[in-house]
Amino acid sequence: MILDDRLPTILRKTYIARIEGDRLLIGDRRRYPWEISCVACASVQQVADAIRAMVTQGGGPLQVALTTMRLVARWIHAGLQPDRLDTFVHAANLLAEARPTNTTMARTLKDFVVDLSVWYHCQSIRSSHDRDLVSFTDSLLDAVEERFDHAYESMSDLGASLITGDEGVLTTCFAEHSFTLSMLKATERGNRVTVYVPETRPYLQGSRLTAPSLAQLGISVKLVTDGMGSHLMGEGLVDHYLTAADLVAMDGTVVNKVGTLANAIGAHHYHIPYHVFAVSPDPTKLTRKDIVMEMRDGGEVRRCGTSATTLDSIEALYPAFDCIDASLVDAIITPKGMISPADISMHYKVAGTDKGAST
Amino acid sequence: MILDDRLPTILRKTYIARIEGDRLLIGDRRRYPWEISCVACASVQQVADAIRAMVTQGGGPLQVALTTMRLVARWIHAGLQPDRLDTFVHAANLLAEARPTNTTMARTLKDFVVDLSVWYHCQSIRSSHDRDLVSFTDSLLDAVEERFDHAYESMSDLGASLITGDEGVLTTCFAEHSFTLSMLKATERGNRVTVYVPETRPYLQGSRLTAPSLAQLGISVKLVTDGMGSHLMGEGLVDHYLTAADLVAMDGTVVNKVGTLANAIGAHHYHIPYHVFAVSPDPTKLTRKDIVMEMRDGGEVRRCGTSATTLDSIEALYPAFDCIDASLVDAIITPKGMISPADISMHYKVAGTDKGAST
Repeated sequence: MILDDRLPTILRKTYIARIEGDRLLIGDRRRYPWEISCVACASVQQVADAIRAMVTQGGGPLQVALTTMRLVARWIHAGLQPDRLDTFVHAANLLAEARPTNTTMARTLKDFVVDLSVWYHCQSIRSSHDRDLVSFTDSLLDAVEERFDHAYESMSDLGASLITGDEGVLTTCFAEHSFTLSMLKATERGNRVTVYVPETRPYLQGSRLTAPSLAQLGISVKLVTDGMGSHLMGEGLVDHYLTAADLVAMDGTVVNKVGTLANAIGAHHYHIPYHVFAVSPDPTKLTRKDIVMEMRDGGEVRRCGTSATTLDSIEALYPAFDCIDASLVDAIITPKGMISPADISMHYKVAGTDKGAST
Repeated sequence: MILDDRLPTILRKTYIARIEGDRLLIGDRRRYPWEISCVACASVQQVADAIRAMVTQGGGPLQVALTTMRLVARWIHAGLQPDRLDTFVHAANLLAEARPTNTTMARTLKDFVVDLSVWYHCQSIRSSHDRDLVSFTDSLLDAVEERFDHAYESMSDLGASLITGDEGVLTTCFAEHSFTLSMLKATERGNRVTVYVPETRPYLQGSRLTAPSLAQLGISVKLVTDGMGSHLMGEGLVDHYLTAADLVAMDGTVVNKVGTLANAIGAHHYHIPYHVFAVSPDPTKLTRKDIVMEMRDGGEVRRCGTSATTLDSIEALYPAFDCIDASLVDAIITPKGMISPADISMHYKVAGTDKGAST
């Protein structure tokens, strides 16, 4: 919890996900910033459904999933679920399948289940530890969260170091912890940063999450529509393009919210550097061919909040993510440092993943 | 009225503007496609206010202005306005000032006033003509409208000729007559055209005007958000990028709805041809420095239809138009044919406009 007091409301762990009784409360990003409210989930299936329904998105599902694992341990402890590893495996699979493109949560849960298997397979661990399943699970998950917190701190130091004066920054969607802390640290170092925030249709993560969060931290924000990024760059207002990544493959392909590509091409055209925050490049995705791209319901494009934007009879498309070619990216900011996209596999590819790792 | 029966509702002259009694009725594009309704104006000031408030936009204000001139003649005939040229000049100025960037209406009204001045300055014209001011004005305006109708027909023939098979077309905003007729003619020639339509925030001209109009003509439409153009081009779905222009300057700079630039850069990146329909390149605008760029109220970005998109306290920007450099444009489709942007001044620049023409 080292970061929470510096973060805007939407990124605080207690807002993203918390356990209350035998239920998980997920901060409802769909109602933010007008309401600080939660969706309550009484089963893992309900958590998965909430993620699919965009109650939380971006980096939110990772924190939600970790908290769900804590809750599953409590359910087992209370005799509400079978006391075996498979209960966790099943829960992890349900959550991982909720949205297919961002694999950070799925890989983190997989690692957690491997670590937890010691508890079930090794009698000596149970007896040598003076604790129950809940405290063992919590200790594993505390370590996972601490690792991510440290990653966000070091990545945001690198992000802040890019800003060397009174500069304009363009982003896309909601780039979460590393980006938000970068802008905060750059500001604290005396730079006057102006962040240009595209609204990010159809769910308005930019106008609802990014803009109010930065404003809450006292950072200058200018909201624009999704078509205005190149306009701003053409007018000379943008010194840096900075986004998160939902996924980075081993060929340096960056996957992020649809709309990111248009601005990456614009930045390339105007010779503006593009840096990407990626807390967990995926060693199992060798090239963009291995990436599962989510197509969401076009009906989501036909409305904005409670307003219809067109007739119900008009066909609409909602590809949720863009693939950005490595040639458009200056560097990827990772927990291992700032890495050229061409070199990402050197730092992340696991030996022997050339064959079949993507399956 | 040669075109009206082939056009979708929104482009029919009787919808765009018509005289009823002593008032002008303007088709309310803000309520389309859910309502076919009008805003009634009882003065030229009210017409100018309606244009400023986006009751009609794009090519709409031109037709509205021509019909307003017909109404002014009727007001004079009925003794409601002073019978002098200055009544028309004043009306033309009010309308021209409503929105500054698109100069087609202003220049067309200026030419009309010059033609009309004969009526007031030449007694012989009045006596030699067996008609009154209303019929003289109508005859001038009939000729103007006929010229535009012919321009739309020839430009849409050129636009349709670009389509040579089952192809995907990306557009931006609502490209009005020439574009709509191009897609119709290309379809009638047996091509299966799919038009990808960005919604065009904040006023949703794409989702509300372009998509329903093309669908009304039986053309396949896929609605997307404004950030998805490059995504579609990257996926190989787009064979042509086609837009209108609010203005073309003599250095080949194209001005069109904000969002056009991002897709033009995307098209350039993916080697997709970009053609622009321009019914009236502006010989008085020598370079982009001469173009008056409209900045609208950022509050328009903070809402979508009746829904707020963010907090009222968030600052937003709404630059209404993009300037697209000539190097990004393959050709400009004009009433004089398809012209390279580098050659536009050869066809349109008036002798002696090198000095001071832009003032």
